[in-house]
Amino acid sequence: MSSDHLNPESDSFESRPSFCIGQHDSNRFETLTDGQYSYVLNSGFNFVTTPITNQHFFNRVVDLYKSHLQEREQWAQERGLTAAQRSNPSLPGPVVSTLTNKDTSYFPSSYVGALVAYSSPWIDLCSSDPLISSISRQVLNLEITYANFCGARSIIIPGPREDSGRGVAQYARAVQECMEVTTQTNIIIHMPMYREPGLEEKVETLSSLFREANDAEAEEKATKEIDLFGAWDSWHTIRSVCTYNTMLFVALRIPRRLPETDLQERWFAEPLHYLSLTKDIFQDNRAGHPTLSRNHQALITRYMRLKNSPWLFLTDVGPDTQNLNEAPGKMAIDFPSLSEAKQALKENRKPHMPPQNAYLGYIKYVERQQPPYSAMESPALTSFQDWLQSPLQPLSDNLESATYEMFEGDPVKYDQYEAAVTEAMAEWKLLNKPTSSATAEAPNCRELICAVAGAGRGPLVTRVLRAAERTGTAIQMWALEKNQNAYVYLLRQNEREWGNRVTVVKTDMREWEGPRLAANKDVITKVDILVTELLGSFGDNELSPECLDGIQRHIAPRPHGISIPQSYTAHLSPISTPRIHADLSARAASGDANAFETPWVVRLFAMDFVAQKVPGHARFQQAWEFVHPVEVSRADDFAAEHGRAKKYCTVGGGAMTGSSGTNDHNARHCHLTFVCRTRGVVHGLAGFFESVLYAPQVQGKEPVEISILPDQIDRKSKDMISWFPIFFPLKQPLYFPQDAELEVSMWRQTDDTKVWYEWIVEAYAWVGPNARIKVGASEMHSSRKLACLM
Amino acid sequence: MSSDHLNPESDSFESRPSFCIGQHDSNRFETLTDGQYSYVLNSGFNFVTTPITNQHFFNRVVDLYKSHLQEREQWAQERGLTAAQRSNPSLPGPVVSTLTNKDTSYFPSSYVGALVAYSSPWIDLCSSDPLISSISRQVLNLEITYANFCGARSIIIPGPREDSGRGVAQYARAVQECMEVTTQTNIIIHMPMYREPGLEEKVETLSSLFREANDAEAEEKATKEIDLFGAWDSWHTIRSVCTYNTMLFVALRIPRRLPETDLQERWFAEPLHYLSLTKDIFQDNRAGHPTLSRNHQALITRYMRLKNSPWLFLTDVGPDTQNLNEAPGKMAIDFPSLSEAKQALKENRKPHMPPQNAYLGYIKYVERQQPPYSAMESPALTSFQDWLQSPLQPLSDNLESATYEMFEGDPVKYDQYEAAVTEAMAEWKLLNKPTSSATAEAPNCRELICAVAGAGRGPLVTRVLRAAERTGTAIQMWALEKNQNAYVYLLRQNEREWGNRVTVVKTDMREWEGPRLAANKDVITKVDILVTELLGSFGDNELSPECLDGIQRHIAPRPHGISIPQSYTAHLSPISTPRIHADLSARAASGDANAFETPWVVRLFAMDFVAQKVPGHARFQQAWEFVHPVEVSRADDFAAEHGRAKKYCTVGGGAMTGSSGTNDHNARHCHLTFVCRTRGVVHGLAGFFESVLYAPQVQGKEPVEISILPDQIDRKSKDMISWFPIFFPLKQPLYFPQDAELEVSMWRQTDDTKVWYEWIVEAYAWVGPNARIKVGASEMHSSRKLACLM
Repeated sequence: MSSDHLNPESDSFESRPSFCIGQHDSNRFETLTDGQYSYVLNSGFNFVTTPITNQHFFNRVVDLYKSHLQEREQWAQERGLTAAQRSNPSLPGPVVSTLTNKDTSYFPSSYVGALVAYSSPWIDLCSSDPLISSISRQVLNLEITYANFCGARSIIIPGPREDSGRGVAQYARAVQECMEVTTQTNIIIHMPMYREPGLEEKVETLSSLFREANDAEAEEKATKEIDLFGAWDSWHTIRSVCTYNTMLFVALRIPRRLPETDLQERWFAEPLHYLSLTKDIFQDNRAGHPTLSRNHQALITRYMRLKNSPWLFLTDVGPDTQNLNEAPGKMAIDFPSLSEAKQALKENRKPHMPPQNAYLGYIKYVERQQPPYSAMESPALTSFQDWLQSPLQPLSDNLESATYEMFEGDPVKYDQYEAAVTEAMAEWKLLNKPTSSATAEAPNCRELICAVAGAGRGPLVTRVLRAAERTGTAIQMWALEKNQNAYVYLLRQNEREWGNRVTVVKTDMREWEGPRLAANKDVITKVDILVTELLGSFGDNELSPECLDGIQRHIAPRPHGISIPQSYTAHLSPISTPRIHADLSARAASGDANAFETPWVVRLFAMDFVAQKVPGHARFQQAWEFVHPVEVSRADDFAAEHGRAKKYCTVGGGAMTGSSGTNDHNARHCHLTFVCRTRGVVHGLAGFFESVLYAPQVQGKEPVEISILPDQIDRKSKDMISWFPIFFPLKQPLYFPQDAELEVSMWRQTDDTKVWYEWIVEAYAWVGPNARIKVGASEMHSSRKLACLM
Repeated sequence: MSSDHLNPESDSFESRPSFCIGQHDSNRFETLTDGQYSYVLNSGFNFVTTPITNQHFFNRVVDLYKSHLQEREQWAQERGLTAAQRSNPSLPGPVVSTLTNKDTSYFPSSYVGALVAYSSPWIDLCSSDPLISSISRQVLNLEITYANFCGARSIIIPGPREDSGRGVAQYARAVQECMEVTTQTNIIIHMPMYREPGLEEKVETLSSLFREANDAEAEEKATKEIDLFGAWDSWHTIRSVCTYNTMLFVALRIPRRLPETDLQERWFAEPLHYLSLTKDIFQDNRAGHPTLSRNHQALITRYMRLKNSPWLFLTDVGPDTQNLNEAPGKMAIDFPSLSEAKQALKENRKPHMPPQNAYLGYIKYVERQQPPYSAMESPALTSFQDWLQSPLQPLSDNLESATYEMFEGDPVKYDQYEAAVTEAMAEWKLLNKPTSSATAEAPNCRELICAVAGAGRGPLVTRVLRAAERTGTAIQMWALEKNQNAYVYLLRQNEREWGNRVTVVKTDMREWEGPRLAANKDVITKVDILVTELLGSFGDNELSPECLDGIQRHIAPRPHGISIPQSYTAHLSPISTPRIHADLSARAASGDANAFETPWVVRLFAMDFVAQKVPGHARFQQAWEFVHPVEVSRADDFAAEHGRAKKYCTVGGGAMTGSSGTNDHNARHCHLTFVCRTRGVVHGLAGFFESVLYAPQVQGKEPVEISILPDQIDRKSKDMISWFPIFFPLKQPLYFPQDAELEVSMWRQTDDTKVWYEWIVEAYAWVGPNARIKVGASEMHSSRKLACLM
């Protein structure tokens, strides 16, 4: 492979995720000088972190705390108080006075926006000591407001030190307060993926400084079972308290031992701003160079596929800027030492450039190893990631040509349709050989009557004609279209492409009078094969059942008449998708009362399927099915009613409010149980569909299908891009503990004029072999106000 | 006792709850005729239930179901389908056609509003058979819309037949749909208090009619452990799906065996519209008359104390109206039989009056046995039950005379204040005998300087003067008041009542220049006893700490200066209060964005304390404490700052947004753990306070206290009515399973100008001896936008 694939001007250029890599020094106590900053950037890093305050400030706070303890001790002694009385919470705590220029070397500058501010790790917001937590909160407020003043675009706050409920709520409250000040600054919580025993970040905090010998507690902690989802849970508490603020992100510390995929996927769905890599997750290869395990590489590759791929920062891997600091004004980069110059020459680089950083070099190598973007990851498609589209109203709105063109751009779908029609025609010929009993009323066995209803710009017409040619079937071809503009296009296509073989009718398919015999135009006959493409992301959500009901009276009666598609099913799976929840919350806050009641069409990407596949419970479960033609004696009644005749006024008195019940038979209901092994939170239901376009009656022949189910699409209709999933949101995220079951109830509701969905999720937990307790439930949601109009 | 106490015109009239008693016949299939209706009313009942549809309709629906099954069977046989295929959900179900005049004898009439409509008990909305649940839903819709049309004011719907999650969501959805039609009609769900094994209501339903022999299932159900809170849980699901609609109520069936008090109290908090009593809960006494157990009587007494006390209805206790029906047109009441007339004469009543109903007679006896309303249950106080009052802004608003007068009407509070001042004066005299070292700066030991800050109309001044008289203490009396209107009243009081012994100053106490020596008006001295009544329902919520800080510099230094109150504590308990939640939801829906962020003052009544008292965890837990004077070296600094001097600009850089931190020392935080044995739902936190007005230093003397804590008020300040509790609501009710713990975090936040609260509740469940799982959490709530202004 030539290097052309790396040249963006070249035809063979392959784009791939690019890495933005930063440097973080956990021992840094001063902001980098201009010289130091250039030095680090020259080492190849894209950005650098900076502390907000310095050692002077740290000492000042420690002194404040000490002197307060003394003051309190003296006060207590004077009064001869007991130990219990001494911890009197009514005694005001110390007040950290405002910053001075001695407390910081971080100031507004031309590149301050490029520095990522990192707040002091020595505070402990979770402390159960009210003095320490109060001081910590004050320090955090001072630092955040100051960094915000200086122009920081991003501020990283070290995450809580523990995952117990008590401290975390306190921590979350402090972060929430900060976010009220910093409306233009990203706040990023530095969280471990999970707390790795023995590999926790070791930081000297106010708590550890002043803690009396408490080794027992520490030991107890170490021997405790690892709580894999504990850190995620803390993060969940923090962002919930911050009401999914879209300026709140995670910097995720990659652990040395990667946990189960479930946890990796959980974090994948969270708003990752940074991945943080410490020195100790690297392993030396045989040549002594730092490398990452295959699993670590795979993790990075996975995370870097996100639309907004996270930045990386390397902690404590050099270059060492501390020594450069020793002679301020006389920068090491200007005056390399003799040995440095010699080394630089040896490495064939300019002597004032810093030496190549081995860790950085390795990460840049990993960057080059990223697989190029596939066709499915083209920028056009990637831009749809997690982007909410309002559902179509195909019946009441007329689509534009460009929309049709986009639909037509999916060869997979139309190939499947052509295959289905081909199979149907072949079988029809086989099963319906001409007999003497054929009458004008019965299907004309020499000329098969085909109709495409809702023909749009005609792609299905082309496929039906092609199938007829392939199978040598004589057909009479009808194309129906209600969109007067698409009708013009169809007439032109008929002239230019279809050799005037098609009868094009401008009509709503539900009002069509039916096909006429070619031999005698006065005789109305029936359609043998009706082809439609009315399916939405959830199958029936664009009213395919109602439209097909409306034209069903023109389909030849069983066993002749065929509808392609023959049947379709809707499928659900509960998902965690915090970014979309944040998006919807923002919409709701800015006045969209229906944000959480809308079934959104969305290319779900940064999400986590919370349900597992276990015996008896699939991850994706079928909600309901529609089969066409509707096989009941009353089918004609329905058709007549849908044909706007509505003679049957006594029908359906018990239907939905104000409805005459003519569409009651298209209502559906399902109750599904999903199993969740680990704790988590559900933000809504992902919806998909599958359809049997045609199932041959001949034994041993496979049905022709299309599917957008994640676990079926590759088998049934690989690379089909016409449909994104549908998303039914929940107003309130529903938290559930481990060993939970989510019970999903969903309704497809109908009245005379519209169709909508209602959904509710209930959470249960197994707490013993036979004991299941309810732990919560969502509200009842309804898209009635945004219903699809008939 | 004469019967005068029953005469409302009499002075000794004692009012007590009055019962409204109805009659329900579970075998009634037709609406009562005018004659039957009069007959039942003449038996002494206040109202009667009526079915909405009749036997004809029932038969029609059963036939519809049967014929559909046949149709389906035939359809399946024709096609040779397997059993699995036969249950094809794509086959449209039967449609119940609209009602005709044959289906009902219920019509609009002059007394239709007095009839309580009772929907058909033979439907089964919970059925897992989609046909039955669909037919049931249609029947319900037909009946409810028809009853609504006829003018029914209340419609009772039999509750779900089971408490499993699946059916209940389906049931709830159906009720919700009904409530969209009936905006002027109360919908009442008939629920058992719990499902008593063997004593469940036996009703023939569509399900039971068509169920194949399924005795095993029934038996399994019978042997299952009783789920005491199951029925409540179902009701909770229903009303949650109906978003706490204020037109949705419960008709509660009283069980034969009363359950534990917890469950009785749980239902007490729910919107009870009816109590339903069946024949089988009565026991015959020795004379063969039906009676209720003591516990049943106590339960009724408890429930009847509600502001809107529930109505009662008796099921299947007669009088028998079925026989009256046999000769329509020839009403039995017009033409009593000979034997009836004879019996009536024997009983000394008019012959056309129906015989006395023994059950009704007994309930009327119970009514007469109700204890009369106490002073605490006066109509004025009862009207405050669960009525939300916005919190006062005593600092920024000037109160009106009537408000002061209301406060002054509570002798208990002022008696305690007088007792406290008396103790303080007595001790002061004891401990501060005149010494030669007394100077102008030191407290003047011959004349004690007392001040009432925020004197209002002067009730505390009167009490201090009285205490001085009682203890023979020479005092110099100051009264400070910022309200210019109350000031006028104080001057008048001084002239008329206090003999001009009081120096009245119109000032905000925080800006007062301090008392002057009587001997030399040029010398400013200190206050020995400062008396204030600044406490709110939560102690500090009306800014007592801030006000006392502002005047603290005028209090004599330790050990002389005394503040009455000396200290106060705030207390919390999580509660279930569905009615208040419904009220708040309605306010929020009609535009009050802060309804759920307001700490409401409310006389909590229809509520349930969800936490239990267990070792280590109280039901009421202390949040925090304030002690006065604030005992720190910086007290004068605070005072100076509160005196609007604000010299200390370097103080408090880490305080709340935009604050200089001068009031940081009055911020508080607590984290409390409450234990809940049974599952339930928490709607918010009830807040209370206690205060030590004065704690004598002399050993063995009890402190003088006031308290509004439910478990302390009787001991510390019985019958004190000045304060109702405070209520901190939760936006989303938080459900929790059995063996749960609720972790409450609350903050008292301050900035330079205001004080507010923040609160969050997290729910955990114990699922093993060492395993506690998180099951949910509320949002973070904040009253910042409604803060109390300084």
